[in-house]
Amino acid sequence: MEIAITTMQVRGAPLIGVSAAFGIALACNDNVSDNAIERAKLSLLATRPTAINLAWAVTRLCHALLATPEHQRKDKAWDLVQSMADEDVSINRRIGLAGLTLLEPIDKPIINVLTHCNAGWLATIDFGTALSPIYEAKAKGLAIHVWVDETRPRNQGMSLTAWELEKAGIPHTVISDNAGGLLMQQGKVDCVLVGADRVGIDGSVCNKIGTYLKALPAKVHKVPFYVAAPKSTLDKDFTFANQTFEIENRDERELFRISGINKEGHLTEVRIGEAKGYNPAFDITPPEYISKLICEDGVFDPSQLRGLLL
Amino acid sequence: MEIAITTMQVRGAPLIGVSAAFGIALACNDNVSDNAIERAKLSLLATRPTAINLAWAVTRLCHALLATPEHQRKDKAWDLVQSMADEDVSINRRIGLAGLTLLEPIDKPIINVLTHCNAGWLATIDFGTALSPIYEAKAKGLAIHVWVDETRPRNQGMSLTAWELEKAGIPHTVISDNAGGLLMQQGKVDCVLVGADRVGIDGSVCNKIGTYLKALPAKVHKVPFYVAAPKSTLDKDFTFANQTFEIENRDERELFRISGINKEGHLTEVRIGEAKGYNPAFDITPPEYISKLICEDGVFDPSQLRGLLL
Repeated sequence: MEIAITTMQVRGAPLIGVSAAFGIALACNDNVSDNAIERAKLSLLATRPTAINLAWAVTRLCHALLATPEHQRKDKAWDLVQSMADEDVSINRRIGLAGLTLLEPIDKPIINVLTHCNAGWLATIDFGTALSPIYEAKAKGLAIHVWVDETRPRNQGMSLTAWELEKAGIPHTVISDNAGGLLMQQGKVDCVLVGADRVGIDGSVCNKIGTYLKALPAKVHKVPFYVAAPKSTLDKDFTFANQTFEIENRDERELFRISGINKEGHLTEVRIGEAKGYNPAFDITPPEYISKLICEDGVFDPSQLRGLLL
Repeated sequence: MEIAITTMQVRGAPLIGVSAAFGIALACNDNVSDNAIERAKLSLLATRPTAINLAWAVTRLCHALLATPEHQRKDKAWDLVQSMADEDVSINRRIGLAGLTLLEPIDKPIINVLTHCNAGWLATIDFGTALSPIYEAKAKGLAIHVWVDETRPRNQGMSLTAWELEKAGIPHTVISDNAGGLLMQQGKVDCVLVGADRVGIDGSVCNKIGTYLKALPAKVHKVPFYVAAPKSTLDKDFTFANQTFEIENRDERELFRISGINKEGHLTEVRIGEAKGYNPAFDITPPEYISKLICEDGVFDPSQLRGLLL
């Protein structure tokens, strides 16, 4: 499971969280001692530093297991992770319905939403976070179109979000990450809707690198900027002034190597450049750029998050 | 020459301009009639709509040729285009020296410049526009490091700018277009320096898509945003409120297909996505985000451009 998370076979904050919990349950198949559980926990916590859901899910699960008699731990682990997966689905459904209340009032023949990275069901157990309101809008019969940032360097938008929307029959157009500013300037975006890997208690949002560069033009062009994430993404110790966690720097080869289908129809990796690279995976958008945060409890202003934790 | 410009075998506003002029000279090898020159002019003007240098160079040259007796036109054409090429070199050298006056006062152990796209000698006849001050800084012995935006979808930063800087021995690091906001937030950028395809008389800058998304964080984080371009890039009819020209939309396949070197060392094109795409090639940055414009006459505020044309 550590390899699956590190190499991003599973990715997306909520899915990382539940997957890491399954990693603990898998470890319990072999050894349910306190030591074994602690070892599994530390190993999983080390996989990726930025998304808080991982630490939240693993810590919560291990805490419950260590308080359980050893002979019951294995069954308990599998019960708990299954209920965490079910809970994720239910939370995302509620995020979708809450987010729908922000899309419905948009009085346009077609509602144009811009999203960055992938926060759909491929990033969660089902429904997704940022895409969940879009699925609800489609189910409700709203005319919606999604501008999909390709999301370099790993192209989660072009490869995952575009694929999800295609499967769901939702009209969408892929753009380079560079294009969103022009589109907002031209009035072609009605709202931005993204997920989050960690939300600060002041409403700061840590999300996929480049999110901040969409929040800036959104503010200038008065395009609402919405962030959808479960409450488990909230970090009460994190504010914009106090960034308590590490922003993951990933292998620079992600910039220079890309896989695609060649003329013969085979998946092929090609090298598109050769230089020194720097590849931070996330950035932080300050609260003043966030119009609303959407979670399973509803829609909130950044300033209301402190109350949400009480 | 039309094919070379349309398919971007030659690209970069100044190089497009001079290349188009060479296209007229080539046409004069075959036929120097008024009609032939007009036909060549219209054909070249139709290749790319956004960079003004093309129209400037072609119009200027044809005007001179039509005022010349037919039997002298061929020689005149080749004389003029050679002097236009020489003039480009001299202009870019002066841009470099003017831009150097903005880099020299930066009081840092290493001057960190961020650039977008390619405005080096590969985009001009020699020296380049935005890279010219960087070459002068290197020649002067300043410690300089360049953050190179990869510049999707055509990756001119990753493939051209990184290559130029490598050849010149100038330290540089390639980043995804998404990363610049985080870097500026973290104080890792001392100035942004880009070229331009068209500069409005109010100081608006039309440049490679994504330029605007670097101007926004530069303003927020008080990072000077410099634009280097020859006076021939000025368009007296263009202001931010009055966008008189077309922003070129290029083939959406540029988003989904990319060429690189495969495991066997062969140049291979791969398909990295399959969806509807939208591919505007330029955006416009309003004058309030431009700290200084650098041209062959020196360094100017956006508000001073009107005086420059008089």
